[in-house]
Amino acid sequence: MIQVVLLGAGNVATHLADAFSKAKNIELVQIYGRAKKSLSHVDNQFDTTCSLDHLKEADIYIIAISDDEIAKFSSKLRIRNSLVVHTSGSIAMDQLHGKFRKGVLYPLQTFTKNKKLDFATIPICIEAEEQNDLLLLEKLASSISDNIYFINSEQRKSLHLAAVFVNNFTNHLYQIGNELCDGNKVPFEILKPLIVETAKKIETISPIEAQTGPAKRDDNKTIKTHISMLSEEHQKIYKLLTQSIKNTYGKKL
Amino acid sequence: MIQVVLLGAGNVATHLADAFSKAKNIELVQIYGRAKKSLSHVDNQFDTTCSLDHLKEADIYIIAISDDEIAKFSSKLRIRNSLVVHTSGSIAMDQLHGKFRKGVLYPLQTFTKNKKLDFATIPICIEAEEQNDLLLLEKLASSISDNIYFINSEQRKSLHLAAVFVNNFTNHLYQIGNELCDGNKVPFEILKPLIVETAKKIETISPIEAQTGPAKRDDNKTIKTHISMLSEEHQKIYKLLTQSIKNTYGKKL
Repeated sequence: MIQVVLLGAGNVATHLADAFSKAKNIELVQIYGRAKKSLSHVDNQFDTTCSLDHLKEADIYIIAISDDEIAKFSSKLRIRNSLVVHTSGSIAMDQLHGKFRKGVLYPLQTFTKNKKLDFATIPICIEAEEQNDLLLLEKLASSISDNIYFINSEQRKSLHLAAVFVNNFTNHLYQIGNELCDGNKVPFEILKPLIVETAKKIETISPIEAQTGPAKRDDNKTIKTHISMLSEEHQKIYKLLTQSIKNTYGKKL
Repeated sequence: MIQVVLLGAGNVATHLADAFSKAKNIELVQIYGRAKKSLSHVDNQFDTTCSLDHLKEADIYIIAISDDEIAKFSSKLRIRNSLVVHTSGSIAMDQLHGKFRKGVLYPLQTFTKNKKLDFATIPICIEAEEQNDLLLLEKLASSISDNIYFINSEQRKSLHLAAVFVNNFTNHLYQIGNELCDGNKVPFEILKPLIVETAKKIETISPIEAQTGPAKRDDNKTIKTHISMLSEEHQKIYKLLTQSIKNTYGKKL
């Protein structure tokens, strides 16, 4: 049985709490939250505290708070003989400050409040200073997910950057698509199957093989028409991404 | 029974042929292809021809060829008393030239060779000059899909433009993500569940609500770090999309 304390009560912490509570060999001993209010959605199911002085004993303490606060928060912890990990994609392991053993448990997924996720399919990237701790983290991660990766801080930084492109920026393109539909009284619904298929396509073929569209086939007539239909801001995005696709396939705009 | 002749033997035509052959009230009478070779993958299953002089009688002729060739191709057709439609998102209905009745049947999806699709979930946008033809197209489309939309040429043009953003440009962002992973020896596999979840998320919440990431939360420290990690070309894309997200949420870079 691995004993775990969760430090944080936000989105990631709540999803982890949910996953741990269903795992066979994990005991979720306690959840810490900054304020009593922040714990209201979990305190009927788990032991909770708002005081770092009242943290219970555990094998692993998991910090799941805002990236910006991790370093400072970790330096307040009085933990000595346990493993402390954070869950951030963009923070290096050595930004954890304290006399505890250090590691990272980064579940790479987009977490939405109130939207259940199947944790088993979520890739978990782990890192630790000590080999034994890496094995401990692997055991912990394996109990909630089928996809475990050993990823160091440098690799994780790149992964997080790549995630910004495929998740945050992609979602923004969906939003522009939504705006274009609204502006022309077309239901955005129509695009949803295309959006899902575009994502699923690259499960079997690489993005470079999957590319289609006017930029790929150097169809400058369509490109020109499209540009004339867009606002100045959207024109800039259209032109830059079109040029980038053309560069990838060796054609000039 | 609706009798159909397919004019074209490419990706879209092949997927339509497959869907029609399974539909109960459709008879796929013939497939026309420019050259015998282009028909080799369908000629053991369907009646085919390479000559426009040997087209069989049908209720609907469906032109499924490159956008650029539709206008010229349609003017060669000797069809009089039937409905002729094209399948393009970016070509207006009135670019069909001939003495036949005109319409459009635009299946909005990304078609890949050899990758089977469930046509039932693909939205089909239909348009026709005559009310009766619109009903005929609705009957045809309903026999292969559950999602039929009445979309005029102007709306379809916007839809096609929006599709470039959510499909072509999105796929290019996947490709940049893939490059960033390769460059740092991280398996691109790790990002695939995130990519699918990002697409699925907007089935239940709007893209504007789904937005996350450093640009959304105005996290300029992370943005600066990310920019420093990118090539000049990728920096431009990162900066422009970050600025566009910030503009959407009313913050300054």
